[in-house]
Formats: sequence, C-alpha cells, structure tokens
Amino acid sequence: MKVVITGGAGFIGGQLARRLTQLGQLTGPSGKPEKIDAITCFDMVVPDKPFAGLDARTEFIAGEISDRATVKKLFDRPDLSVFHLASVVSGGGELDFDLAMRVNLDGHLHVLESARALGSRPRVVFASSIAVFGGKGMPKQVGDNTKQVPQTTYGMTKAIGELLVNDYSRKGFLDGRSARLPTVIIRPGKPNKAASSFASGVFREPLNGVPCVLPVGYDAVMPLAGYRTIVEGFIRLHEVDGGALGEDRAVSLPSLDVTVGDMVAGLKRVAGNRHLGEITVEKDPVIERIVASWPTGTQYERALKLGLPKDTHLDSIIKAYIEDFLGG
Amino acid sequence: MKVVITGGAGFIGGQLARRLTQLGQLTGPSGKPEKIDAITCFDMVVPDKPFAGLDARTEFIAGEISDRATVKKLFDRPDLSVFHLASVVSGGGELDFDLAMRVNLDGHLHVLESARALGSRPRVVFASSIAVFGGKGMPKQVGDNTKQVPQTTYGMTKAIGELLVNDYSRKGFLDGRSARLPTVIIRPGKPNKAASSFASGVFREPLNGVPCVLPVGYDAVMPLAGYRTIVEGFIRLHEVDGGALGEDRAVSLPSLDVTVGDMVAGLKRVAGNRHLGEITVEKDPVIERIVASWPTGTQYERALKLGLPKDTHLDSIIKAYIEDFLGG
Repeated sequence: MKVVITGGAGFIGGQLARRLTQLGQLTGPSGKPEKIDAITCFDMVVPDKPFAGLDARTEFIAGEISDRATVKKLFDRPDLSVFHLASVVSGGGELDFDLAMRVNLDGHLHVLESARALGSRPRVVFASSIAVFGGKGMPKQVGDNTKQVPQTTYGMTKAIGELLVNDYSRKGFLDGRSARLPTVIIRPGKPNKAASSFASGVFREPLNGVPCVLPVGYDAVMPLAGYRTIVEGFIRLHEVDGGALGEDRAVSLPSLDVTVGDMVAGLKRVAGNRHLGEITVEKDPVIERIVASWPTGTQYERALKLGLPKDTHLDSIIKAYIEDFLGG
Repeated sequence: MKVVITGGAGFIGGQLARRLTQLGQLTGPSGKPEKIDAITCFDMVVPDKPFAGLDARTEFIAGEISDRATVKKLFDRPDLSVFHLASVVSGGGELDFDLAMRVNLDGHLHVLESARALGSRPRVVFASSIAVFGGKGMPKQVGDNTKQVPQTTYGMTKAIGELLVNDYSRKGFLDGRSARLPTVIIRPGKPNKAASSFASGVFREPLNGVPCVLPVGYDAVMPLAGYRTIVEGFIRLHEVDGGALGEDRAVSLPSLDVTVGDMVAGLKRVAGNRHLGEITVEKDPVIERIVASWPTGTQYERALKLGLPKDTHLDSIIKAYIEDFLGG
C-alpha cells in the first residue's frame, strides 16, 4: 500500500515517515495489514537534504495543497492511506486569513475529495488541534464533548476540518479520524509562526547554548505532548477500527498540562552539566492573547480507551529530544 | 439602505421581505437606523406571481448562489444588510451531497466574501438549524453550549456556517449573527425535501381537506416555531448590538417542544367545524432516522435575554396560518 503524508517535509511529517518506514505496514482499505511500498511526503518544498531513517520507498513531492489537481495526482492507487498534516499554523493564520482558508479549508477539501474519488474508502488521519477550543465560556478542561468556539482562524479551520471528516466518514466516502493535538514539543530547527512556537524554543534554544526570549510569563499553562507520542498516536488512531470511533471521529490526544515555569524547571533538571542559554521573558501581547485563549487542560479518557499513548513525564520528552537531536 | 435576502423567493424569505417592507428601516452598517430603499430577493428562480405585501422597492433576481460572481453582483453598495437563508434542505442534502456542499458551503462563503468586500462591515444574519446537533452523546435539551455532532450533511454545513460567521465577525470583516432555527411551521404550498416537511403538512393538508400521510409516529417530538416568530426573530437578531453577542454569534432561537400527537390534537382544537383531510401514519425509515437524530428540546435563555421572541402556544401558530393563508 501507499501512504500519503501532507506536510510531509515538516518536522512531525518527517518523523511519521521515519516511523512508518520502521514499521513497514499498516491496515489498508481492505481492513487487513498491508506492506507499505511507497510513502509520499507532500509539502510546499522538498527538503534540502534527505531525512535520516528513510529509504527508497519514500518520495518527496513539492506542490500547493490549495490546488485540487496537484493533490488529486497523489491519490493514484486504491490501496492508500493519508495522514493529512499540512496546515497554516495559528500565528500565520492570524496574519494571513486568506492563506489559512486556501490551505486549511480548500486544501482539506481537496484531500477529502481525492480520497473519496479512490472509491476504496481509504483511512484518512487528520491533524486537528486544541485551538478548536476557546471563548469566555470555555471550561478549564476541554475534551471530545466540549463546544468548539475557536478564537483563531487556525482553530476555526480545524473545527471545520473535524466536521468534514465526520460527514465524509458518515457518508462512507472514506474512513476518517481526526487527532486533536495539544502543543507538540520539542521541535528542532528554527522558531515558526505558531503562537506556541516558544514551547519548543524554551528547551531547544538553551540546549543549543543560545538565549531564549519567552513571549509569555512563567505562569502560562499549556497542554503539551512529545513528538514521539504524537507520531505513535497518529499511527494508533489510523489502526483503530472505524466502528469503535462511532459518529464523532475526532479524538483529543492525551497531554501533560504544565506551566512555562514547569518547562524551565524540567529543562534545568534534565540538562545536568550542560551549558544553557539564558531564558528571559519579553511579553508579546498578540502571542499572550492567543495562548490565553487556549485551554489549560484536556480530558482524554476516550483516547486512552482507544489505546492511544500518553507521555508519562515532561523529563522523558526532554531526554528524547536530546537523544534524537543532540547526540544523547 | 439595501437588504439582500438569499433564498428570498422561498416561504420564509418572502415573509421576511414583506415584514421589512412594513417596517421600512433597519440598523445600517453605520449603527444608526436607515430607511430601506431596496430589497433584493435572490433565489434559484423568480416567483411566477409577485408576493403579496411587497412594493416597488423589492426586486427578485434569479441565479446560482454557488457562483461567486453572481453573488458578488448583489453586493453593490456599502449600506447593505444580508439575510442569508438560501440552503439545500436536510432531506435534499442526504440525497445530493455535492449539491449541498456547493450551495450550503461554497454559497455561504460567497455571501461572506461579498459582504467582506464591501468594507463597511455589514450585518449578516445567517439561518442555521438545530440540525447542527446530533449523535448518541447529544443531550435531550440542546443549546448554545452544546457540542455539535451533526448527523446530516445539511447539519454539518450549518455547523460550518456558524463557525465561519463567528470568525469573519471576529476578524472585523462583517458583523455576523447566526439564528439557529427549530423546525418552522406552517409552510404553505407543497411538501419539500426537508425531512421535517411533515411538520407543516400535518396541519396544511388536513386544513386543505386533503389526506396527510405522516412518515413518523405520533410519539416523535420536535422543537417547532411559527414563521411569524421566526421572521421577527431574524429581524430582532439583526438589530441586536454585535457586542452583546460576544464571541459566539450563533443563537438558538426559542422553540415549542411538542409531539406529533400534540400537533394533531392542536389542529383538531383550532379547526373547529372545518372539514379536515384524514391523517395516517406510514413510517419512512429514512425520515424516521433523520428526525430521531435531532434534539427533542432546546435551551434558549440567551435568545430571550437578547430580546428574541418566543411562540406562546401551538394553537396561536395554527390560527396565524389560517388567518394568513386560508382567509381567517
């Protein structure tokens, strides 16, 4: 079978491709385990240098997800699964509404329509976000039964994405699942336009010996998950029997709910003798407003019942990053 | 100012045009009352004969709401308000998914984008529906804080419509409001493809002396509202100050929650000596499934706080219909 990963040149997309390469198989549209003979990582640009841990089965294709014909070409065989991760992020969506609509709404529809056109009812795993939640009436703990009143265009398009995945699944056009992600850490490389970007930066920059300027205070609370756990969550959600998901195919993935202060303390615990870049706070009102509009905790009983994984401790997430990206 | 009514050749659209003709003014984008000098009723077809109660200010224009250029042409002056009622209905959406997406999603986006392009932040009133609710986890009483898990394509597109109205309003592109309607009765004329069509037919057909075949049993419960109250609700929601609506611009309109048995009993009470066509039940599993997926009651405290009207009794709704359509 073939696996299409949109946003496949991104950090999570690349990690997912690597894990799928290791595993070598998934449940295909037939409902039976099938060998993965092709992984297509679709993204805006092809990466400069190949990702570690991939082999000849993986191909990178560059293109615009907002172009239906481009997306449709990726869906060229019935024995196919999709992990749809491509997205304009939260801060980016606030800066460019129309871009967010083209990528996150039109692009999402192109993926769903292309999957539907196969006729094989393929499995589609969509990356949603806790940014679907917001508003003054939002409970402190959000979950699968919480009314969605997003306060960013990003969150709005993700909420719409969940509704579309549900209805395309209900109609039997595809077998969809939406993974509602907390903030995923620790992303290597450079900061991005996500308002949550600092939640990776607070670990990454100091560990690289460079200073980190936080746009929010130490008391800001964020539901976090490590990337290893999220990649595993995507794959397990793909493998869950569709019938077990029922009418609402969107599942809040488990999170650790920690303050920025907890993050800094965790970093210092794990770093040991490493020299750490200085951490300072320079509050950014735009980022503060976005982060304050997000929930501070998640309910995820359903995810655990479905067998999805949960991080055990913040320290393990930091250790995994050091192992994967800083040579242990 | 100009008022655009999409679905303006439909029953509710026509009633709304008539009421606006009587009123003669609305709050314009300026925030002040403005005289209505033009009402454009946009619909798929122009009605055969002019509606009663309209005057030279009202123009009917036929066109496809799924065509962006056609919609944009209607938005030709900044002092404008929109009542966006055009929609594929529930049963129709289940029969033709793609049509529902073109009309209810693409068409909705065309209306919002056209309103945004005016630059005057016009008021937009969107007709949503309690069909946004559904699923096994749905509470018996649904309201503004209930998670939306629609079980029809119609309901899915209405839920998306609410999310879009919220975000376009948050961004300051327009000043939107969504009126979440219960089943509106009593529609004159012929049955339509709405799964709820029988809730008008159960009164209309017997009063016309013709038989009525119900697709659901006497114990089916439906939240109902009379069309006079709904038209008044649309107008009052238009007049509410946007700030009073806050982050969630979608308001569940008040309903009377009655059984089909209550409807038949009410009809017999009000009909007096009139000869009534026979009422029989021939259950239709498709309609039964759709109706059973809807909520049986609504919470509408917020609507009442905002000054939106509520029907006092089923009998008054039946009497109003006899007055308006059967010569009293």
